[in-house]
Amino acid sequence: MTISLKGRSFINTMEFQPAELEHLLARAREFKLSRPPRALEGKSVALVFFNPSLRTRVSFEVGIAELGGHPVTMSVGTESWTLEYREGAVMDQDKTEHIKDAAQALSRYVDAIGVRAFPGLKSREEDLADPVIECFRKYSSVPVINMESALWHPCQGMADALTIHEQVGRVKNVKVALTWAYHPKALPMAVPNSFAAIVSQLGADLTIAHPPEFPLEKRFLDSLPRRPRIVHSKEEALAGAQVVYAKSWGGSAFYGRWEEEKRVRDGYKSWICDRVPPGAVFLHCLPVRRNVEVSDAVLDASSIYDQAENRLHVQKAILAELV
Amino acid sequence: MTISLKGRSFINTMEFQPAELEHLLARAREFKLSRPPRALEGKSVALVFFNPSLRTRVSFEVGIAELGGHPVTMSVGTESWTLEYREGAVMDQDKTEHIKDAAQALSRYVDAIGVRAFPGLKSREEDLADPVIECFRKYSSVPVINMESALWHPCQGMADALTIHEQVGRVKNVKVALTWAYHPKALPMAVPNSFAAIVSQLGADLTIAHPPEFPLEKRFLDSLPRRPRIVHSKEEALAGAQVVYAKSWGGSAFYGRWEEEKRVRDGYKSWICDRVPPGAVFLHCLPVRRNVEVSDAVLDASSIYDQAENRLHVQKAILAELV
Amino acid sequence: MTISLKGRSFINTMEFQPAELEHLLARAREFKLSRPPRALEGKSVALVFFNPSLRTRVSFEVGIAELGGHPVTMSVGTESWTLEYREGAVMDQDKTEHIKDAAQALSRYVDAIGVRAFPGLKSREEDLADPVIECFRKYSSVPVINMESALWHPCQGMADALTIHEQVGRVKNVKVALTWAYHPKALPMAVPNSFAAIVSQLGADLTIAHPPEFPLEKRFLDSLPRRPRIVHSKEEALAGAQVVYAKSWGGSAFYGRWEEEKRVRDGYKSWICDRVPPGAVFLHCLPVRRNVEVSDAVLDASSIYDQAENRLHVQKAILAELV
Repeated sequence: MTISLKGRSFINTMEFQPAELEHLLARAREFKLSRPPRALEGKSVALVFFNPSLRTRVSFEVGIAELGGHPVTMSVGTESWTLEYREGAVMDQDKTEHIKDAAQALSRYVDAIGVRAFPGLKSREEDLADPVIECFRKYSSVPVINMESALWHPCQGMADALTIHEQVGRVKNVKVALTWAYHPKALPMAVPNSFAAIVSQLGADLTIAHPPEFPLEKRFLDSLPRRPRIVHSKEEALAGAQVVYAKSWGGSAFYGRWEEEKRVRDGYKSWICDRVPPGAVFLHCLPVRRNVEVSDAVLDASSIYDQAENRLHVQKAILAELV
Repeated sequence: MTISLKGRSFINTMEFQPAELEHLLARAREFKLSRPPRALEGKSVALVFFNPSLRTRVSFEVGIAELGGHPVTMSVGTESWTLEYREGAVMDQDKTEHIKDAAQALSRYVDAIGVRAFPGLKSREEDLADPVIECFRKYSSVPVINMESALWHPCQGMADALTIHEQVGRVKNVKVALTWAYHPKALPMAVPNSFAAIVSQLGADLTIAHPPEFPLEKRFLDSLPRRPRIVHSKEEALAGAQVVYAKSWGGSAFYGRWEEEKRVRDGYKSWICDRVPPGAVFLHCLPVRRNVEVSDAVLDASSIYDQAENRLHVQKAILAELV
Repeated sequence: MTISLKGRSFINTMEFQPAELEHLLARAREFKLSRPPRALEGKSVALVFFNPSLRTRVSFEVGIAELGGHPVTMSVGTESWTLEYREGAVMDQDKTEHIKDAAQALSRYVDAIGVRAFPGLKSREEDLADPVIECFRKYSSVPVINMESALWHPCQGMADALTIHEQVGRVKNVKVALTWAYHPKALPMAVPNSFAAIVSQLGADLTIAHPPEFPLEKRFLDSLPRRPRIVHSKEEALAGAQVVYAKSWGGSAFYGRWEEEKRVRDGYKSWICDRVPPGAVFLHCLPVRRNVEVSDAVLDASSIYDQAENRLHVQKAILAELV
């Protein structure tokens, strides 16, 4: 069977068949061993950032350059115009351009558009619609690559899967624990969603641990091909785990009531990841608040830099195959 | 006749003969059909932004890369130093570097300098001197390309002309209407100036419509080779127009009296462009405030993305011919 | 003798032997005469800016591109995460990522890391430890290039030395005056340190002039291979000088007492450099506050643009030899 992904956008892994994801991961492994083809020769890719970035930006820029292409990076609101995404909006407020226009104009200049747009964390329904990246998808005539949206960080998920495969030899049936970690702020769900999605799609045996007040969205969990086990104790999740992923996320029940969330959240400072089972692979997407989310000892004995490096390889595979 | 433009700056189209502009537009059409020569191989171009940008930045970066060159983009004041332009200034205030030094130093590193510097909108006389771009021109030893100054946006004007030529088959004697549009803020005159200039230089039959309080500068209008007709009704301007360009601009009589301008301006909210004659080509430089300046219906049936794309082609022609 | 610098970081010139510095300067002269080899073909270099830049950024980007490499420029805190550098920090405050992680992750993507990190000017002991660049050096597995740190600006020092060599024919035994200049703000000591270091290392006869309250650090002066003469009169320093370098710097005795420093500092407004001995070469690293630090007349008859251009050539030599 020949798999062609040319022209598709990469918004989340759930839109791809496991065989397609395995194909991309195989390409990433090839690209890691030897220089990739000049698949983007003469092509340009816009990288549009509504939020800060370090790994994502550098790994995308370097990956595009290694494929022979030209990256154009821009920060929305400081370097470019502020962008509206509501259909039919009467634009008499602070937004100076509609994504409808920005995406269509950009599609005339570049061969793909990467977008980073975190959730506003003000309206739950709005965030659940992932409005910025979906507006880019709707109006772009070139592939849109998700560099982390309100709901998804699929390139991170791909790098996570590649790292598990490298460290354990497979993803299928591996015992994986995703454990909530304390963090002084409410963070998005894009990383835990994308991690849970891909390991579920590739057949891992996933346990998710979190305090009762911090579940992932039920509609998301219901959509997974292999349902994770949910527990409210990190010790329970870690027992026997071959892979441990620690990550903080926000409480969707608290939307718009940060003071209340903070009170509850601050009661869970003990959810720092300061121990993993012997031999277990520890993962974190970075950036990480050391000695708050995860202890120095766990981080310094982990695979987090291999995981970070794998961003480069999976993204080169995605760009080479889709653009 | 051989036309050589090598080494010249591109500050506004009025400094170029119509035959020179036609030559550049012909090159742009060639470049649109097939890959341009690697005219910037081994060369670098600095793109200096005092203000935000989306199309300009992406189209310049992509164009330079497609010509084989290396773009260096920087935002003044955030990424680089704040810049002074007054001759002989005693620099004991907030400005940390003089353009005199920045332009001469940059000229040692790069082969051309693009500059975007909007008007301050505080002193009319200062804005009319276009001080930032003129200071760069004075002190640069490499060509300076105007990416929109206080007075001019000549690359936009060139893209506008190319689009009219594509859509109507010519510019000469085409009936063109430039109509003021309502916008909640006072905007610069660079775009209407540059549009009026190039269509006048290329022989179009131009009508400009605006409320009585919002004329373009008389000294500018007097300088045009073919005087436009001025009316105070958008309906009158649009009647029989083959090309309609809607754009907001500020009232030069109100300089420094924004509250007063706002009162007058808000009385003209009906100057939204929500209809164009059947078959007419509608143009706008973007960004556009949808349903404030122009309705969704007019924009969605327009040529604005072709016009945006043409930025890329005219700029490649300008860079290839001048640098 | 064959000199190989491959794999070393370039944090300050004091870590290099004079013969190694001479080797780099000789390469810079070669690269100035003809196109350098494509030493960075297929390689990428991250340029991490904690502070603004014009010359440094453009000359590094252009130099990397001319060597065939790909520069990735980023501004910390606006485009990327805010970075912590204290070992073992409990990161529950405003810093979102540790340099320990950023440097190790970046080392997986790029072949060298340039860092600009000015001093905080709040704690003298902290600034004297040069903590940001040293943290990058400690955790990067690729060479780190100093683009100006709290203590050093060695690429500027190299450009200064190259310019003296070009203008006078040698550095050894040249009479050089480094004179403090008035500036409304307290500036770092990186430039005077690096200039004093390299001319001392290359055997110049250096005099430093400053008001009594503004000495360079004693421990720094004691470390120089050839001790400079210190005077408290700019006229005394300038008498007979073949090279004059004017530069402002802060008073290390005033740390944390800016109001007091300002009072003392403002008493030295006459320390503007408005005259140099006939035939003397005048240098300044730029940016310069014209008619505050140095008069227009001195600047406009100086070698400052040659000096600025030489940044490009020395940096290409450093990158080609170390990366």
